[in-house]
Amino acid sequence: MTDQVNPPQRTLMGPGPSDIHPSVLAALAAPTVGHLDPYFLQIMDEVQQMLREVFQTENQMTMAISGTGSAGMETCVVNLVEPRDKVIVCQNGVFGGRMADVARRAGGDVTVLERPFGEVFSADEIAAAVDQHKPKVVGIVHAETSTGALQPLEEISRIVHDAGALLLVDCVTSLGGLPVSIDAVGIDAAYSGTQKCLSCPPGLAPVTFSPRALEAMDARSNAVSSWYLDISMLRNYWGADRAYHHTAPINMNYALHQALRLVLDEGLENRFARHRQHHEALKAGLEALGISYSVTEPSHRLPMLNSVLIPEGIDDGQVRSQLLNEFGIEIGGGLGPMKGKTWRIGLMGEAASSTNVLSFLAAVDQCLAAQRQSAPTGAGTAAASAVYLNS
Amino acid sequence: MTDQVNPPQRTLMGPGPSDIHPSVLAALAAPTVGHLDPYFLQIMDEVQQMLREVFQTENQMTMAISGTGSAGMETCVVNLVEPRDKVIVCQNGVFGGRMADVARRAGGDVTVLERPFGEVFSADEIAAAVDQHKPKVVGIVHAETSTGALQPLEEISRIVHDAGALLLVDCVTSLGGLPVSIDAVGIDAAYSGTQKCLSCPPGLAPVTFSPRALEAMDARSNAVSSWYLDISMLRNYWGADRAYHHTAPINMNYALHQALRLVLDEGLENRFARHRQHHEALKAGLEALGISYSVTEPSHRLPMLNSVLIPEGIDDGQVRSQLLNEFGIEIGGGLGPMKGKTWRIGLMGEAASSTNVLSFLAAVDQCLAAQRQSAPTGAGTAAASAVYLNS
Repeated sequence: MTDQVNPPQRTLMGPGPSDIHPSVLAALAAPTVGHLDPYFLQIMDEVQQMLREVFQTENQMTMAISGTGSAGMETCVVNLVEPRDKVIVCQNGVFGGRMADVARRAGGDVTVLERPFGEVFSADEIAAAVDQHKPKVVGIVHAETSTGALQPLEEISRIVHDAGALLLVDCVTSLGGLPVSIDAVGIDAAYSGTQKCLSCPPGLAPVTFSPRALEAMDARSNAVSSWYLDISMLRNYWGADRAYHHTAPINMNYALHQALRLVLDEGLENRFARHRQHHEALKAGLEALGISYSVTEPSHRLPMLNSVLIPEGIDDGQVRSQLLNEFGIEIGGGLGPMKGKTWRIGLMGEAASSTNVLSFLAAVDQCLAAQRQSAPTGAGTAAASAVYLNS
Repeated sequence: MTDQVNPPQRTLMGPGPSDIHPSVLAALAAPTVGHLDPYFLQIMDEVQQMLREVFQTENQMTMAISGTGSAGMETCVVNLVEPRDKVIVCQNGVFGGRMADVARRAGGDVTVLERPFGEVFSADEIAAAVDQHKPKVVGIVHAETSTGALQPLEEISRIVHDAGALLLVDCVTSLGGLPVSIDAVGIDAAYSGTQKCLSCPPGLAPVTFSPRALEAMDARSNAVSSWYLDISMLRNYWGADRAYHHTAPINMNYALHQALRLVLDEGLENRFARHRQHHEALKAGLEALGISYSVTEPSHRLPMLNSVLIPEGIDDGQVRSQLLNEFGIEIGGGLGPMKGKTWRIGLMGEAASSTNVLSFLAAVDQCLAAQRQSAPTGAGTAAASAVYLNS
């Protein structure tokens, strides 16, 4: 007989899942009720309302898709794109590439704009592409989890809307850690995941759609290729009708409910500032250890996902194994073409703490010393501590 | 501020979710680890192995899709069906209708065979249809959750295979409560949900594919319409490569792991017998209360989903509200054309117990008496108790 589940306690500083508050795990284990139970319908309403606050939107159609972040991506794409629709996807990392793949499968006539991993797109190049291709949808990643790059959106949004197109944004890693400001920026469709800066286990994908996005869906001439992710039906399940569509993951919605309560209790501005503060401390510590960021432009670095270059002569797998096995700390390796070249250090939600920053810096110092057969320097924790003292 | 999650304790005797063992909820709340953590990879392996035992199959490609039962259906259909493929879907309830919808969205050339709700298909009519249409895939529902009908599969499987087609079976409600015997019956693709006879919260969809089904996928000329559910990529994530695809719902997999342990600890034969026994007791009790089954042929009635006709003159909503609010018991109403006509009483997994059968019979006796302004008869619990005494 297989042993009972008894996972090790990890410090989750990778690209997600992130550390989770005990009250979120407790909510996850609350008694299951039926998916049409009046109590669960109330939870759904409250999850929707809290998601609107976190997305900073008035969008009625804001809810949690019953799948992980990639299901959120697929939901946005397959509902907005029908065969032969022109779509521009901006690809500067793994997740832009994934969005293009999903759009092609939906039958879209997809143009991919490319930037090297770690760079972001300028408003000018988007303007030129929009002008040339006249797309229905422009898809872009706000926070590229594979590269640690932060894409500014305000000007791009104006350009996309002036051309009558819809702006689709991947907020998987930014939601809850950086302002996504759906309404202020003018984002028409966005998706996220629960296991990043919301600090909830993976399993749900928050999405939001503007009235313009819903109009585009209403004007479709083909059925959405996915039944499971068809917003025309999900609207009636999450809306006033409560028409049965599928059985929502009840307990995952409990957990998201509690995670959102914690986000709003802290306050969005405080939460963004906290992510920024621990990023600054981590950055100072990493630099003191001679580790540099793979995103060269400082203003384009994500606070919650620190993508750094693995120092010359250091064995990637050996460091990550030592961190996991000796210190219980998980960080991420590079994804796609960055494999073996970068580490991705997450400071997402609950994981954005001085305890995590300092213990990680001490641990990585020791791992580097072990490989270099030298002594740990203590320079990382000293530099980070100085940032904390001055803040 | 929204109140913290604090759900009422329900007795879940509807069409799912079903009652859940406390150890499954405890596993759900175990510490989250990363999706590529060696510990989680071990959990994935063990979940796969235990699912093979429960599906009674040697199929390598057996795993849990990161979505609910309907995502399992969509996974099977979109991977097996490509544009213009001929598909026969057998529809005798809501879920057969859903399968046809999904197959059409996948571009399939779909022929629907229809039987009235509550009836099942004969081998002869399947043979005639297969002969006429020469399909690539024949889809059928083993246990129709909307009608309570049990579809015999053995002879149909032989017919489908003799014609060189693939047999796709919906086992959402049967898995863990009735033998599904994937290998013995010769089922090529099957999907289920976690929240029925496996007694786990909703959120994952166990699926299994035969080597023949995988060959058919390998021979596709088009990409699968869904990226999220594309088996050609999920194979590499759940297989030896462990290639990152999406972030699996870690904690849901913990819960499924513990639920499967309980299933195998009880033993499949014991578990099937338990479902049968409590069904017999419930049936005797219902008949003593003058309530009859909507499936007229006794051998076609599902033990775990008892679909009964609402007695003449009784208000459906009033009874279900009273059961929920006064007794904390959830049963299901009729779905689709059965709305207002039937009740669906689940005895799934943990919910298949004498406590549930007897308390439900006493409660419904009282609800009926309240509407008839008569006294409860006690006939239901007496008849069920007699079955228990004699078994």
